[in-house]
Amino acid sequence: MEKPLQATEAQHLILHSVIALGVETVQLDQSVGRVLAQEIHANRDLPPYDVSAMDGFALRSADLAGVPVVLEIIEDIKAGDLPGKILQTGQCARIMTGAPVPVGADAVIRVEETQEAGATAVRINKAVKPGNDIRLRGENMKDGDVVLTAGTEITPGVIGVLATVKAARFSVFRRPRVAILSTGNELEGMDEAVDLNKIPNANSYALMAQVQALGIEPVLLGIARDDPAELEQYLKRGLEYDVLLVSGGTSVGVHDYVRPTIEKLGVEMKFWRLAIRPGHPLAFGTTHKTAVFGLPGNPVSSMVCFEQFVIPALRQMMGNKRLYRRTVTARVAHDVKFRPGRTEFIRVQLTRDDNGYIASSTGTQSSGVLLSMARADGLMVIPSDSTGLAAGAQVVVQLLDGTVFQEAAGFFD
Amino acid sequence: MEKPLQATEAQHLILHSVIALGVETVQLDQSVGRVLAQEIHANRDLPPYDVSAMDGFALRSADLAGVPVVLEIIEDIKAGDLPGKILQTGQCARIMTGAPVPVGADAVIRVEETQEAGATAVRINKAVKPGNDIRLRGENMKDGDVVLTAGTEITPGVIGVLATVKAARFSVFRRPRVAILSTGNELEGMDEAVDLNKIPNANSYALMAQVQALGIEPVLLGIARDDPAELEQYLKRGLEYDVLLVSGGTSVGVHDYVRPTIEKLGVEMKFWRLAIRPGHPLAFGTTHKTAVFGLPGNPVSSMVCFEQFVIPALRQMMGNKRLYRRTVTARVAHDVKFRPGRTEFIRVQLTRDDNGYIASSTGTQSSGVLLSMARADGLMVIPSDSTGLAAGAQVVVQLLDGTVFQEAAGFFD
Repeated sequence: MEKPLQATEAQHLILHSVIALGVETVQLDQSVGRVLAQEIHANRDLPPYDVSAMDGFALRSADLAGVPVVLEIIEDIKAGDLPGKILQTGQCARIMTGAPVPVGADAVIRVEETQEAGATAVRINKAVKPGNDIRLRGENMKDGDVVLTAGTEITPGVIGVLATVKAARFSVFRRPRVAILSTGNELEGMDEAVDLNKIPNANSYALMAQVQALGIEPVLLGIARDDPAELEQYLKRGLEYDVLLVSGGTSVGVHDYVRPTIEKLGVEMKFWRLAIRPGHPLAFGTTHKTAVFGLPGNPVSSMVCFEQFVIPALRQMMGNKRLYRRTVTARVAHDVKFRPGRTEFIRVQLTRDDNGYIASSTGTQSSGVLLSMARADGLMVIPSDSTGLAAGAQVVVQLLDGTVFQEAAGFFD
Repeated sequence: MEKPLQATEAQHLILHSVIALGVETVQLDQSVGRVLAQEIHANRDLPPYDVSAMDGFALRSADLAGVPVVLEIIEDIKAGDLPGKILQTGQCARIMTGAPVPVGADAVIRVEETQEAGATAVRINKAVKPGNDIRLRGENMKDGDVVLTAGTEITPGVIGVLATVKAARFSVFRRPRVAILSTGNELEGMDEAVDLNKIPNANSYALMAQVQALGIEPVLLGIARDDPAELEQYLKRGLEYDVLLVSGGTSVGVHDYVRPTIEKLGVEMKFWRLAIRPGHPLAFGTTHKTAVFGLPGNPVSSMVCFEQFVIPALRQMMGNKRLYRRTVTARVAHDVKFRPGRTEFIRVQLTRDDNGYIASSTGTQSSGVLLSMARADGLMVIPSDSTGLAAGAQVVVQLLDGTVFQEAAGFFD
C-alpha cells in the first residue's frame, strides 16, 4: 500500500490543482462576504474640509490661556452648513460633529467642557491645543486614492467604505457551483420510510450545511446506488458543476468500480490514504472544469475532511486569502493518549477561565457519532509527531461553525 | 448631566427589555444558523444492530491467540446486507464499514492488518480484543431519546443529526424584521450626485451589512431630513418592524426634536451617555412591539455600538444563547495610553507567533475613520479601570466579521 499522506501535503496538492473562478458584478446590498475583484478609489477628499470631531465650540486655542474664560458665540454651524463668519479673538461658534470649522478657529472644545453663559456666550473650563477635535481635510481619504484592493473580503466595515465612495456596483469573484452526490445501497433517502437495514443519509445534508455556511447554495444530486451505470449517470451530472462532492465510495471495498467509472469520465483522480484521524480515505481529482472530492462515508470523517480539505479549496476559488479555520490556543482538560504518525482532530467543547480557553473532549471520538460533532465547538489538533498530552498542555483548536459568538461578553467594566 | 453608563449596564438593561419573538416552521435545507424551538427525538436505534466500524473481517477474537493465523472466509457482508451464516471457530466474514456483524463474531479487524491467502481465506497478522471495531446497537442514539433540545443553534453538525432522525421540517425561532433609518440634512444618498457639503451615507449600509452578517435581511427606510414632520413619518414606518435602528440624531444638538418626536409616537425612550469609546451617545427604547436603537452618527461609533448593544439584542430575539462576540486573548504590540473611567474598543489587526495572538492598532482611532474598521480583525477591549498598557500586556480582543478564517492553517505535521 502507498504511504499515507500528511494533512498539509494533501492541502497543498489540492490548492495547487484548484482553478480560480471568474468574476461577476454585484450590487452593494448583495455583497457581504464576497471578495473584491477590483480596486476601489476614493471619489472625493474626506472630510472635504476641516470639520469638527465633536459637538461643541470652534474657537482660537490661544484664547484659552487663562481658563475659565467666557467667549462670545457668533454663529451656530450645523453639519451640512457652511460657516458665514470669520472668527476673531474672544469669539467662538457653536459647532456640530461633522460641521466645517470656520476660518479663524484652530480648535474645537467639546460641549461637555463648557457651561452656558447667557444667550450668546459660553464659559470654557479647559484649555485645548491647536487642532483639538478637528478632523483635517482628506484625513480619512484623498480623492483618487486606492481605498480597497482586489482580494479584500467584504465585511461590514468594507461595506461602509464602499458606500462612502458610492460604489453601488463592483466586481467580485464568482462563487463556485457545488453539487453533492451520495453513493451506497445502504443509504435511506429523507423521503423514504424507515428501514432498519439502511442508514439515514445524514452526510449529504451535513455537507449541504457546511457548503451553505460558506455562503454557497449547493445542489443535492441524490443517492447513486452501487451500480456502475447508475453511478456514471450521476457523476456525469455532477461534472457539470465547478465542484462535485461525492460522499462515500472511497473506502477500499468499493474502489473497484467507483475509480474506473470516475476515470472513464475524464477525471484525473487521486485516491489517498491520509495520516489523519478521523477521515483517512480521501479522493481528489480534476477535469478541465470540475474539482471532485471523494469524502469518507462516516459522517464525522466526512465533516472533518470537508473542514480540512474542501473549505480551503472553495475559499481559494472565491478569491479569499484566508483559507483556513480560525484557531485559538487552549489548555487540554484531561490526559490524551494517541499513536504518533497521524494528525488527530478531537472534537472538543471550549470553556474559559482566567488563563484562557480550556478544551474538553465531547466524549466518544468514534467517527460514527455525529452527535459529538453537533456538540463540538472546535477540533483540537494533535500533531502527527505527538505521543500524548497531559492535562493542562497547550493545544491548538480550530473553531467550527457556530463559534462566532459566545455566552459571556468576555469583558467587565 | 447624568452619569455615563458602563457598557455592561447598558447591555443588561437592553437585554432585559427585549421581547423574545415567536416561532415558525422551516425546512431542513433552509435552517442553517437558526435556533431550534422544539426538542428533536431519535426515530430508531442507531446503529440498528451491532455493525462494523471498519472495512475488514468479522471474526472470533479467541481465534487470534496465536497470530499470524489463517481463517476461512465464509461470506461477504456489505452495508445494507444481513448476514446469512453463523460464524464458527476458524471462520471469518469479509465485512464493510456499517455492515451488521454476524452471529458468532465478537470483533472486527481492519483490512490493513490482513493479507490475502487464497480465494476463500485470509491471513490475520494481529490479535484484537473482543468488541474491537464494532459499534454496538444504539451506541449513537436510542429510539425516542432527546437528541437535540430547544435552544440549539443549527450548525452543520446539528443538520447532520436532524437528517439522521429524518426531521425534514421543524420549529425554529423567528428572525426579527429590522428597519434602518438615517437622519440628518448633511447626508448624501447613494443615488445623489456628489456634494462636497454633504457626507456620504455610509452608516446605513454598514449597519445593513452588520445585520445581514447575522442572517437577517434589513429594510433601508432612507434618510429623514432634520424636520420633525418628516422624521415622524419615517419613524412611524420604522415602528412597524421588530427592531428600528436610527442612525444619527442622538447627539446633544439634535436631541431637542428627535426625542419629543420619538416619544410622541409612544416609544419609551432612554438616552444614555455611555462610558465607552468610541460610541458614547446611545439611545434605546421600546414600544409594545418594537425595540428602537438610536446609534451615533460617527460611522465607527455606530459600528462599535452595534457590536456591543444591537448584536446581543438581535441574537437574544432569535433564541440564541450565545449573544456576544467571540473573544481571544492576545498580547498588545505597543504601549497604549488612555484615561480610566470608560471602556475603550481599539481597532486592531491580529498576527501570531509561537506564544499566540498579537494585537496591533490599525492606526488612527478617530471615530470618523471607517477605513480603520475595514482593516480591523477585532476590537481590543480596555477595561474602564485601566490607565494604560505596556507592550506585551495581555488583552481581550473581540473578533469581528471576516475572522472565521485565517491565512495559515495553524497546525503543522
